[in-house]
Formats: sequence, structure tokens, C-alpha cells
Amino acid sequence: MLADGLPKLISFSRMSANQKKMIDLRSDTVTKPTPPMLEAMMSAPVGDDVFGDDPSVNQLQDDVAAYFGMEEGLFCPSGTMANQIAIRMHTRPQDEVICHENAHVYLYEGGGMMSNSLVSPKLLPGDYGLLSAAAIAESINPDDIHFPKSRLVCLENTMNKGGGSTYSLETLQAIHKTCVENALALHLDGARLFNALVATGQDPKMYGQLFDSISVCFSKGMGAPVGSVLLGSSTQIAEAKRIRKALGGGMRQAGYLAAACSYALQHHVARLAEDHARAQQLAEALSGKSFVKEVLPVQTNIVIARLVSKTPNELLKELEAAGVLAVSFGKDAIRFVTHLDFSAEQLEQTVSIINKL
Amino acid sequence: MLADGLPKLISFSRMSANQKKMIDLRSDTVTKPTPPMLEAMMSAPVGDDVFGDDPSVNQLQDDVAAYFGMEEGLFCPSGTMANQIAIRMHTRPQDEVICHENAHVYLYEGGGMMSNSLVSPKLLPGDYGLLSAAAIAESINPDDIHFPKSRLVCLENTMNKGGGSTYSLETLQAIHKTCVENALALHLDGARLFNALVATGQDPKMYGQLFDSISVCFSKGMGAPVGSVLLGSSTQIAEAKRIRKALGGGMRQAGYLAAACSYALQHHVARLAEDHARAQQLAEALSGKSFVKEVLPVQTNIVIARLVSKTPNELLKELEAAGVLAVSFGKDAIRFVTHLDFSAEQLEQTVSIINKL
Amino acid sequence: MLADGLPKLISFSRMSANQKKMIDLRSDTVTKPTPPMLEAMMSAPVGDDVFGDDPSVNQLQDDVAAYFGMEEGLFCPSGTMANQIAIRMHTRPQDEVICHENAHVYLYEGGGMMSNSLVSPKLLPGDYGLLSAAAIAESINPDDIHFPKSRLVCLENTMNKGGGSTYSLETLQAIHKTCVENALALHLDGARLFNALVATGQDPKMYGQLFDSISVCFSKGMGAPVGSVLLGSSTQIAEAKRIRKALGGGMRQAGYLAAACSYALQHHVARLAEDHARAQQLAEALSGKSFVKEVLPVQTNIVIARLVSKTPNELLKELEAAGVLAVSFGKDAIRFVTHLDFSAEQLEQTVSIINKL
Amino acid sequence: MLADGLPKLISFSRMSANQKKMIDLRSDTVTKPTPPMLEAMMSAPVGDDVFGDDPSVNQLQDDVAAYFGMEEGLFCPSGTMANQIAIRMHTRPQDEVICHENAHVYLYEGGGMMSNSLVSPKLLPGDYGLLSAAAIAESINPDDIHFPKSRLVCLENTMNKGGGSTYSLETLQAIHKTCVENALALHLDGARLFNALVATGQDPKMYGQLFDSISVCFSKGMGAPVGSVLLGSSTQIAEAKRIRKALGGGMRQAGYLAAACSYALQHHVARLAEDHARAQQLAEALSGKSFVKEVLPVQTNIVIARLVSKTPNELLKELEAAGVLAVSFGKDAIRFVTHLDFSAEQLEQTVSIINKL
Repeated sequence: MLADGLPKLISFSRMSANQKKMIDLRSDTVTKPTPPMLEAMMSAPVGDDVFGDDPSVNQLQDDVAAYFGMEEGLFCPSGTMANQIAIRMHTRPQDEVICHENAHVYLYEGGGMMSNSLVSPKLLPGDYGLLSAAAIAESINPDDIHFPKSRLVCLENTMNKGGGSTYSLETLQAIHKTCVENALALHLDGARLFNALVATGQDPKMYGQLFDSISVCFSKGMGAPVGSVLLGSSTQIAEAKRIRKALGGGMRQAGYLAAACSYALQHHVARLAEDHARAQQLAEALSGKSFVKEVLPVQTNIVIARLVSKTPNELLKELEAAGVLAVSFGKDAIRFVTHLDFSAEQLEQTVSIINKL
Repeated sequence: MLADGLPKLISFSRMSANQKKMIDLRSDTVTKPTPPMLEAMMSAPVGDDVFGDDPSVNQLQDDVAAYFGMEEGLFCPSGTMANQIAIRMHTRPQDEVICHENAHVYLYEGGGMMSNSLVSPKLLPGDYGLLSAAAIAESINPDDIHFPKSRLVCLENTMNKGGGSTYSLETLQAIHKTCVENALALHLDGARLFNALVATGQDPKMYGQLFDSISVCFSKGMGAPVGSVLLGSSTQIAEAKRIRKALGGGMRQAGYLAAACSYALQHHVARLAEDHARAQQLAEALSGKSFVKEVLPVQTNIVIARLVSKTPNELLKELEAAGVLAVSFGKDAIRFVTHLDFSAEQLEQTVSIINKL
Repeated sequence: MLADGLPKLISFSRMSANQKKMIDLRSDTVTKPTPPMLEAMMSAPVGDDVFGDDPSVNQLQDDVAAYFGMEEGLFCPSGTMANQIAIRMHTRPQDEVICHENAHVYLYEGGGMMSNSLVSPKLLPGDYGLLSAAAIAESINPDDIHFPKSRLVCLENTMNKGGGSTYSLETLQAIHKTCVENALALHLDGARLFNALVATGQDPKMYGQLFDSISVCFSKGMGAPVGSVLLGSSTQIAEAKRIRKALGGGMRQAGYLAAACSYALQHHVARLAEDHARAQQLAEALSGKSFVKEVLPVQTNIVIARLVSKTPNELLKELEAAGVLAVSFGKDAIRFVTHLDFSAEQLEQTVSIINKL
Repeated sequence: MLADGLPKLISFSRMSANQKKMIDLRSDTVTKPTPPMLEAMMSAPVGDDVFGDDPSVNQLQDDVAAYFGMEEGLFCPSGTMANQIAIRMHTRPQDEVICHENAHVYLYEGGGMMSNSLVSPKLLPGDYGLLSAAAIAESINPDDIHFPKSRLVCLENTMNKGGGSTYSLETLQAIHKTCVENALALHLDGARLFNALVATGQDPKMYGQLFDSISVCFSKGMGAPVGSVLLGSSTQIAEAKRIRKALGGGMRQAGYLAAACSYALQHHVARLAEDHARAQQLAEALSGKSFVKEVLPVQTNIVIARLVSKTPNELLKELEAAGVLAVSFGKDAIRFVTHLDFSAEQLEQTVSIINKL
């Protein structure tokens, strides 16, 4: 009989000790659970979610659906999966998905939109990563076999590559109208939807009325370790469960993760305003610098600075040497994201480091 | 500004109170973490695994790779995803995958093999769900454009639909030889590989030598809540990370889940022998019954009873009324799976219930 | 300016002179147009069919649709494409297609069913390659996310691997009923549908009532060089045109090919009875032979002989040496197909050759 | 027994009598075979090309390969299929294909690139539809799992949406170098490659050295009714045959079509210069018009006029009323294509009609 843990395990950590002390502004995905969130996780009732038996998962799904005024929710291991499932459930192969040319679903999901759903992307320009109803209407393909069938519009709110920009209610309503008139489904990539809600004061239930499906992420500014919820009609979520199964997103006692998301929904929404204020202060510190050409307008927790005399990699190295991590964002820009684990004190340090560059 | 947790959340649990007291033999996936496993989870160091920064994930991946003598591992949210990634990384569209006609990858993964990898299944018969080298060799397509290109063989060990049957070392070596000779990749669905190791006393490192890739599941008999590790060469795991990204399996602070798997690797392997012994006793209790036509030979923790005078649904209802949950398994059979949360006392109760049927 | 045809072209024919004199029973696809069919081709009015302007294509599509009592037809470069389009238009990724385990769509179309439509094949056994309504009904998956969604049944009539076997009207009606009751689409691979009509005397319009789509091939027994027509409702054919475009099946002045098909529809249906009679005589010649274990019952133009003391390759070589070409058909059988270019005189020669083996 | 052609066929032509007399400049695909081309078709030796037995197909494949200095050719029913096969044979799912934002493979092939090959399009701008080596090099994705793997560059020469523009030898060589340095495959959509050769005087064999695969179309300016040849290495063409089979592009006696292509290769290359001269004259006639904002520079047989005071549909209606057919080309432009069936006399008429608008 095999002894436990044998043969002898070789173990080590790839993470450098140094990295642990860095001010990490690479993304709001780097946050770790607070003690009470961890407590909520570890005391969560769980069950086998593939059998539908996990009470913590069920509760989260119901709560998020209720929060946005939609019929049902489905817990997913990532925002990417929630988006990918949505795209597949709204489309058929050879359909076309209309999105911004810098949309996360096109740019950062490993080619998933095309490889999971066999759809064509129709890539539109638009200031700060935002689309207008007119641009969408104009991009709809005529009924001609040479062209894919226009079927789905994907928005992203806040818009990552647009510097955390947000949609106004008027724009969303106009886009909704265009979609209804042209029989297009409308999906929202809500990776940072709570940031948009806090920044604009919009009613979350309005979103449930305007969108056919929404992916809501809890592992970014909300501070949960893992998890997104896909929202839609009951019919669509039944279909989404089939797709999640085939993609391999069906988990067993996922309640530990869901409980962290539920905790975040109860305690981490309003506090996003702090992240936004700190992002604003970071932007101000960067604005005056000689190597900064432009800082995109800051509406939420993302600061994108376009550089002029340094390359992104040069600046990132200087920052890292001083104790601050950020990421390059295209050929001439870097991005900072504020979050739950970025304190007032760290902001002060960061501003001071920027001022010394 | 939005107040936390508002609008008022509607919450409830879908799980009936009654179900909580049942003896649940539907699957070994229903187990819940033991207190020390939960403690290991709670104290796990974590980081953003999409950036490669989660030390608990990295450790698990390294440990499982070392355990089976393979180069690298990749943590996945499910065994289905680990299998699906493996199939895609070994194949191209129009290739053929040779597997048993009752293989989990063909039968129970939502059509994922075909929809994720665009491959043809070549479905072979075989006693107790097992394949032979000869049957595989005979099924290889000639080089003819009418036929898909035979590219990959998928085995499953233990074999779920075969009643938890196991492969002998000789058979595995012969199949490996056939694959090498015919330029076929060889993947192992190791959903219950630890059960096979414990039942046969085989050396786990032998598996690393025979297979090109292995999916190892920790949320079945091993008792972890969520998680599988896909093993392969470094080159293949680099490719696997791309596929995991597009399928949506990249998680952030996944270390909480990985830590439970690491705990299981250290403490839950040898104890699988208990589950096997209890399965044997269950089988004996069932064997004499008038409504049982045949109990498949029990090698591990799965008991499949083919029925004769009752339908599976009839028997399942009687069992449920008496406090025992199992599942139907095809048109004339039911399946029981023993596991970490099925105690000696519950075994006694179950045998007594069966005897009264 | 480039001179025409320069640089000097290297030209040769790969076809051996010998092959031209062989009695070719490899398939009914080897026929060449008769002089009047060639005359019909060369005098056909043509246009750009991608613009819908080819009168000969339009006429063929309308005529075949009318012949089978269906709404519309679509001209395709092969029976494989007609089948593949049908499967894609009836399904979505992750759906399941129910067919015989020896169906052409699964076995001989290069893995196209899976790679073009991302569907799972549910492979059923059945005598002489034929399915029953009961077997189909039993194979329908329950509504469970582990299983693909049963969506489409594909029949093949005549059934190639079943020895050119045909479906009775009663069986077709029962299958149709099962499909309607279970919301399954029903497609017919009619590669040799005219042979079935001639052998059974069934009314072609009955097929239009029972099937959602039919592929009708003209380059087999019908003697046309190239072309199949996919039949369906107007809505479906509109969708089929989009699929044909993406697969690359949209041709320009395809009327030359369509005219041959139209000629065949006018002149080559009734004569199939000759091919059937000759196949019968071939089967009789083979039946008594020591090396023949069994000749499948001959209903149409296909003769499959299972061998006992010779391998298929051995027998094929002997036949080729004597001037007759056939093909191996699985591990222990060879297939002969009679056709328009197989004359009474050649039958006599072939029987004489067989008798001397 | 079924009587031939019964039940009574309903036949009609959808083509209006009027259309036959129009000057048709919608595309160079509308040409019909000349009497000697038709004679070449009619007398072509044919065989079953699925068995490799069609001498006319084999000859065409060999001749076109020799003409461009490549190893092998594969006959396809359309240029779209030749392109689609090439893209699939060079890529795997999740790869990225770099092409111009107006490339035919992205824009006009029904979404085939994404639905057949599951790849992401990287869409680059570029004057007159042409790409530069620098733009390609800059667009290559870093090795990061968020991004698809850059794998293939597709050029189009002449470039349809660029107004029939052509690549210089220097640009092609620079792009080839970039591809080699970055392990990218390089495919040419040669829908109108002969036009490019005639316009530039480039050596066709140079193309065989620079490209990994080329699709060469014969049903456009070359005047054949149907057919394209995909060129590549022997290894790739073997793979291409498998893909063609699954897409449904394997035809039987395709030699009738291939013979027309061979005739075109011998007789219709040099004469393309006439089409180019006529296009030039058309462009001059359009240039002075008040409703014409700009005529794209004419290098070959395509004339694109951007409009200013009329919509494309308005102008197309006026032209049609006067006896000339063209097509709209984007929101503010119309396209005319000159070809074999557009005579000097028709040019004169067309210029006169334009002058009267």
C-alpha cells in the first residue's frame, strides 16, 4: 500500500521574498482576502455544486441576480469564462460580435471569442474605449452571404483600455434601443461594474433591464480571491450551465469562493470610492512629469499614463527599483490600478516615488 | 454613493434540510474538507496565479509533477478542464481521439471533446471499460483523406463506467509501446488515479514515463473541494496555459483551493484503502439480493449493481426513503461510490438498509 | 508584359494507360458523362451563381426541390458538403447527432461533422446499417448538463456500408414520428437516394414530407460528373447559403455542372434498375466461392462480400491482375458498385473472371 | 419502377431577359467561357479526382505549381476555399492571423477564417489595402497567454478593396524576411494574381520563393467558369487534401472545370493588359464628374470611385437604367471591374453613359 505523500515531495516557492513588500499596482486582481472575508470563506456551508447542492454558491447566484434585477446567475471561475459563455450562448458559428477594438473580450482573452464561439469580431474605434449607438448601428452588416450575421454587441463598463471610463445612462439606453431594433443581443463585460456604479451612482437594476447578460467580477476591486457571476434569463442560464460544463468550469465545493464574493457584495462596494480618490491623486502626481505626455481622464480606479521620453519598460524598471509595480499598456503607456490592498500610506509613498523620478 | 449590499438581497438555500442527514453515495465528489484540511486552506499563502504569483498553486503544481515524475503541472478548476486542455494540446481539428466507448471524456463532459478540439471520437468496446494495445492498434486509421488522422489515445484509470476497474502495468506498457510505434500521443484521465495506485501498488513515477499527459483530480476520493492538476512536459504546459486562459480557467488567488489539494496529497492517499474495503462490503451486501442481476467486480471505491426486477429509479427511491443516496448508471444499473465522508458506521447502516429492501 | 503560358509548362498525366481499360467497380462515382449529357453541359446557359444569376443552377435547384416536394434547393460541389451544411444548419456546438455507427457522415467525411459543426456523434448499431425508431428514441440524452443535447438524426438511404440497403416507408414514418415527438431534426444523406426510390418504388414527395433536409447526389449512380443538391425549407436554405460561402462552396458559372445533373434527373433514374440487376448477378457469382463467407443481401447497386480464406488485399490484387477494380471495405470485406459505365458485356467478363479465381 | 423525370418538373429561369443585355461590370467573375475554352472543356479527359484519377485536374495542378515554382497544387471549387484551407493548414485554434483590415479573407468570406480555423484576426490599416513589413513586425503579439499566438500573415495581390493595387517586389521581400525572422507563415490570396503579374512584370517564380502558400483563381479575370488552385509544399498539400475533404471540396470528374483553367493559363494571361487599359479609361471618364470625390489610382482592372453628392445606391440605379451594372463598395463608393467579356465597344458605351449622368 502507498504511504501518504510518498515519494518525497520537492517543494519550493517561486515567489521572491522581495516581491511581497512591493506596492503592487499591476492590477486590482492582486488583492488578498481581509481577515473577515477569510473568516466568511472558512465558515461557509458548502456542497457539490455540480449537483446544485452548494448553498453558498446558490446564495451568491441569487443575490447577484437580485442585485441587478436579472432572473438567474451562474458562478464561474473567472470573468473570462463568464464572458466566453455569454458570447457562445448568444451566437452561432459565423455570427459577428460588435465590440470596441480594445475590448477585453477581443484583446485579452487568448483568442477565446473566436476559438470558443467561431464568431467574427467587428472592431469599432471610439474615444476612451466607449461605443455609441450610432457607431453600432452603422456597423451592422447587410443581409448578404459574404458577411457574417451581426448578432451580439459586447460593451465593457468600466472600460479597462479606456482608462476605467464609464458609460452614461443615456448612451446605454440608446445602445439598448439600437440592439432591440436590430435584433442584436447585448452583453456587458462587467469586470469592474461596481466601480462604474459607485462612480456614476447608477441604479444596478437598470442594468438588468438594458442587458441580455452581464458578467460581474468579484476578484478585481471587490477583493475576493476568485469568481465571477454570469447573469441572464433562466433559459439562458440553463444553456450557460451546459457551456460551463464543456469548458470545464463546473466546480464541486465552490462555496468557499462564493462566500468571499458574497462578503464582498455586502462590504466592499461603497469603499471603491476610496480607490477612485487615490487613483485621482496618482493621476495628479503623474500629470506634471516631463516623461508623461498625457494621463487619461480618471473616473474610477485605473490610471493610464502615456509616456513621451521614456519607454514603458524603462519607467517600469525605475518604479520597480523604487518599490512600485505597474504594467505596460500598449507601446507607449503604463497602467496603475488602485485597490483594497493599496493604502493611504502606500499612496503617499507612491506619490513621493513618482515625484523623485 | 451606493451603500454596501443594497438593494436588499433575497437569500435562501436551495438545499433541503433532510438531505443533510442522508448517507450520500452519489459520488466521491460530495466530500467536504476535514478540519485540518480547512485549516491548511485558511493559512495558505496566496498570490495572483494569472501572474504566476501564487505560492500555494506553484507548490502543488511542482509537487504533483514530482510525484508522478513529470516536468510540470497546471492547476485547473476541474478534471473536465484538465482533460479538455490535454485533448486540445495534443490534437488539431479533424484529428481522431481513440477512447473507450464509455470514456468520461466522450460521455460525461458535455460534448467538450468535440466542441473544444473539433476532433472525432473513435469509440472502442472493452471489458470493464478497459482498452487493450491490440484493440488500439487495430483501430488506427489508414492514411486516407476520408478518415480523420489518428492522433491521441485517452485512457481512464480507474475507469468509472467499468466499476472502478484498473489497468495492469503490463497493459499500460503495451499500450504505450503501440502509441510510440504509431506516433500517437497518450493521455490519462486520472480522475481517480490515486485509487488505482492504492489498489495496485503501482509506482506513480511509472505513469510519468508512460503518459504524455495526465489529469490528476483532488476533488474526488482525495477529499479536496475543488481542483485538478494537468501534468505534461514544460513545452506542453506552456501551451496548456494558453488554452486554460481561453477556456476561462485562469484564477487569481487559487492558492486556497490548491492548499487543500496539497493537504490531500500528504494525508489522503493511503486512506483510500478504507474506501475500497467498504466498497467491497457494500458489493457483498448487494450480491445476494433478488433484484440484483450482477455486481461488477470491485477493485476500488465504485460499486455498480445491474438490476433485474426493479428499475434504477424504483430502487433509488426506496434507498432515498431509507436515507441512502446513489445514482442511476445507464438503463439497468445503479452506482454507489465510497469516500472520505462515508464512515464505518454509515456502512453498517447502509448494509442494514440494503438487507431490508 | 507576360507572354501567355510562359514559363514553359511541364505537363503529364498521372493516370496509367492500363487503368483506362479496366472494369472499374470501385464506385459509381467513376462514371463519365454520356455524349448527350456532355452536349447538355456544353450548351447550358450559365451566369454567376454567387450573384444567383446562373439559370442552369437555378433550374436544377427548383426541379430537385419540386421532385421531392421541398421548398428550396442549393447546389453543392459534393455530397459531403451538402451533408456538412445540413448538419451545421440544424445544430449548435455541443449538440449531439444520432446516426448509425457506419454512417458516411461519421465515417468517411474526414471528421467533418465534428470539425465543421462541433457536435458529438451518438453512434448506434443496427442491421445492414439501418436504424429503428426505437433505437433512436432510446438513445436520446436526458436533459443533463453532462450530456450533449440530442438535436439531429441523420439517416442514409441507400446505406453504403449496409450493402446498399434501403429503408421501408414504415420505418421512415416511425422515425419521423420519433423525431417530431422529441424535437429532433431529421436529415437524409441521399447519396444514392434514386437507387432507393427505384428499388422500392417509393414516392419521392413522401421524402419531402418526412425529412427536414435531404442531400441528393448526382455524381454517383446518376452519372453526372460533379454535384449534389441540398434540399430544405426556404429559411434553412438561406442559412445554408451562408454556410456554403464560408466553407468555400460558392461557385461561379456552375451551370455546366448543374446541367449534367438536370440531364441525369431526366434520363438516368429509371435505368438504375439495370445496375441493380447486374449487382444481383455479381452477388450470385460471388456467393458460391470458397473464399466468400457471406454476400450481404443486394437491394440496389452495391455488392459487399465478406471473405474467409483470402484477405481483401489479396483478392483485390488477383482481380486487378484479371482486369477488375474493386475496393476493400473494412478488415474482411470487399465492395463492388455497379453503374452507368458497367455494361452487360463487362458483367459477363467479370462473372467469368470471378469464376476462374 | 419510377419513370425518368417524373413527377413533372416545374422549371423556370430566375434571370430576367433584360439582364442579359446589360454591360456587367459588377465583377470579373461574371465572364463566360469563350468558344475555344468551351471546346477545351468538352474534350477534356476526366476521371474520379477523389481517387486522384482525373488527368485534367492533375495537369492543371502540376502546371500551376510549375508556373509559380512551387511543389504541388490542389484544385478547389473557389478562391474562398483555397484561402480557407491555407489558413487552417498554417494555424491552430487560438492562433492569430495578421491581415489588412479590408482583406477579403476577413471581410468577404462569410466569417470563414474564424469559423473554419478558430483564429483571431489582427486587422492592420494600410494605404490602398497594402501592408508593410514594419507594420507587420509591430503587430506581432508578445509571448503572453492573454494574447493569441501570431502565426500567419495573409496578403492579397492585387488588393480588391485597395482598388486593384499591387505589391512591389521590394515590399514582398521585406515582408517575407519579417515572416522568416518571426516564424510566421506567409500566405497569398492570389484571387487576381495574374493581373498583378501583368501590371508589374514580376516573375511568377519569385512568388513561389516568397510565399508558403498561394491561392490562384481562374474564375475572375482569367475567364474560367469555376476553380482555384492552392499551391504549397508537398507536405502541406497532403494536409490540404484532408481539409478540402472535410469542407466538402472534393469533386469527382472535375476535369471539365480544370481544363478551362488550363486553357486560361495558356491564353488569357497576356490579354489582361487590355482590361487594365480599359479600367484606366473608365477611371478617366469618372474622374471629372461632379458626384465623384476621388477615383482610387488604377493599376489593374478595378475602378473604385468615392462619391460625394449621390449615394452609391442612387448612382447604381441610374447606371442600371442606362444599361450598366456595378456594385456598391462600402458606404460611399462604387466599384467597376473590367474583364474578358467587356469589349472596346462596351467601354465606349459606358464612357458615353457616364458622361451623360
